[in-house]
Amino acid sequence: MNRPQSDHDYHLRYRCSAQWRSFLGALAHEMNTRIEPDQSRALMRRLGASMARNAPLPTLELLPDLEAAMNSVWAGMDWGWVELNDTNDALRIVHHCAPIEAAFGSGSRAWSPAVLEGAYEQWLRAAGAGDRLRVQQIATDTASAEPVYVFALAA
Amino acid sequence: MNRPQSDHDYHLRYRCSAQWRSFLGALAHEMNTRIEPDQSRALMRRLGASMARNAPLPTLELLPDLEAAMNSVWAGMDWGWVELNDTNDALRIVHHCAPIEAAFGSGSRAWSPAVLEGAYEQWLRAAGAGDRLRVQQIATDTASAEPVYVFALAA
Amino acid sequence: MNRPQSDHDYHLRYRCSAQWRSFLGALAHEMNTRIEPDQSRALMRRLGASMARNAPLPTLELLPDLEAAMNSVWAGMDWGWVELNDTNDALRIVHHCAPIEAAFGSGSRAWSPAVLEGAYEQWLRAAGAGDRLRVQQIATDTASAEPVYVFALAA
Amino acid sequence: MNRPQSDHDYHLRYRCSAQWRSFLGALAHEMNTRIEPDQSRALMRRLGASMARNAPLPTLELLPDLEAAMNSVWAGMDWGWVELNDTNDALRIVHHCAPIEAAFGSGSRAWSPAVLEGAYEQWLRAAGAGDRLRVQQIATDTASAEPVYVFALAA
Repeated sequence: MNRPQSDHDYHLRYRCSAQWRSFLGALAHEMNTRIEPDQSRALMRRLGASMARNAPLPTLELLPDLEAAMNSVWAGMDWGWVELNDTNDALRIVHHCAPIEAAFGSGSRAWSPAVLEGAYEQWLRAAGAGDRLRVQQIATDTASAEPVYVFALAA
Repeated sequence: MNRPQSDHDYHLRYRCSAQWRSFLGALAHEMNTRIEPDQSRALMRRLGASMARNAPLPTLELLPDLEAAMNSVWAGMDWGWVELNDTNDALRIVHHCAPIEAAFGSGSRAWSPAVLEGAYEQWLRAAGAGDRLRVQQIATDTASAEPVYVFALAA
Repeated sequence: MNRPQSDHDYHLRYRCSAQWRSFLGALAHEMNTRIEPDQSRALMRRLGASMARNAPLPTLELLPDLEAAMNSVWAGMDWGWVELNDTNDALRIVHHCAPIEAAFGSGSRAWSPAVLEGAYEQWLRAAGAGDRLRVQQIATDTASAEPVYVFALAA
Repeated sequence: MNRPQSDHDYHLRYRCSAQWRSFLGALAHEMNTRIEPDQSRALMRRLGASMARNAPLPTLELLPDLEAAMNSVWAGMDWGWVELNDTNDALRIVHHCAPIEAAFGSGSRAWSPAVLEGAYEQWLRAAGAGDRLRVQQIATDTASAEPVYVFALAA
């Protein structure tokens, strides 16, 4: 048992449930060594979309209600929380405190956040966003203790 | 929220950590629909071997000590428990209360238990079992509330 | 690490979250040795009522809807599941798969189930059951793998 | 579901296992309203000592080994991590990332950290510290995302 170097280090290790940390770390290693980042990204997108299909949101008109419904699903899984903001030309999606870096490691940053991309795209399409719109990751903010993932829904 | 039909039903749903139940269910669906059971089995074997490599056991001579060391790892992950028994011509490995059916569903029985196969083979080889020996699943006992997986180490 | 004697033994140990198993076991020891079962029962009733007040149910008329709302709360906490049945002269409440025996031990059976008593009484009064009605435990069924707790709401 | 105000807010809510968050919050309310902080502190000390007695450490001479053994217990419970430092006249104990503020609330700061006091005192006495020495909390550092608790073992 090595002592964590910092609280940040501790959180990154323990944010992921002890039951699956080892399995998901092994899965990340497999994905890092056997398939291309593009394929890993596509796989994570499909998994996220599938997760969202299995947790359908009620029909909601207003952005704050949609945000609250998404946060209720994330809270039930301890997957962090989201802010939805309408900018002029896109919907900006900021996801905090996801356990995915703790699960898949910092070496997975090129592909693991795509699970959120897939989930938000599925939910927003089901909410009527239109099939031509796509959710795309536009940034990973690693300044805070845990990465914050930023996505946009746009044509 | 559908009411569980039985305690068995409840355990099968909740034995898997809420944080990863949805993700792992989506992964199982992906594996069931996109790749062959043989490939899924091989993947699960590699993941199990990788998990065991990341949780090396101390050097131990006696079977009860080896069993205790394995159970200490499984207990730390809430992955159930194992009995090791020396039969005449093989080592018999019986794994109870694994969360894998809760995670991957009963439709995964053809491949998900291979994660245990891979882990036991890795641990037993590291303990000196010899590289020619293989751990093979020989039965899945579904009579009890949760499947019990039976493996053998043999040439 | 002692090997569990049986799957039942494993479930009783691990049904309670690893984070609080040790603390709650110490709390149970304190309650068993320092205060009377009646006082422990009264304390658990107050704690259960407090838990239910902090998880208010929506206003619902029908028993199956009330049951579903309760199960949604219990599911979010992994506290098992409940069946509500209207008998001729009472409402019968059967709670399955609670983690309380795993947390407080079999030596706590005289008092630990009162946490559920308090929760159901609070929820049923809030649903309009009337302040003269009380929820009382009428049985603990230990025939199955985990105790099943039976309560009745009656005058 | 209110959106967390910050990552800090999220961590404080979710650092405590969902299974016991509601129960422990109710227990904290009970302790805050029914008994004096001194009594709550004494109770938490006894609970911590009891937890440490149930997780005895191996016999170890060196401080880094003792620290590693303690961290192994805390890691298995997801109770954070500890640094032990020998100062001139006392042993300084710094505990990070404990889930106790998430469980018992910031209103419990006068008494909840005593559970760690009791655990360290029990472990250090068992390691030969002498029955005249006591572990006393000397500070709570709330500058970082989660409180850091500082204790000293001294005569």
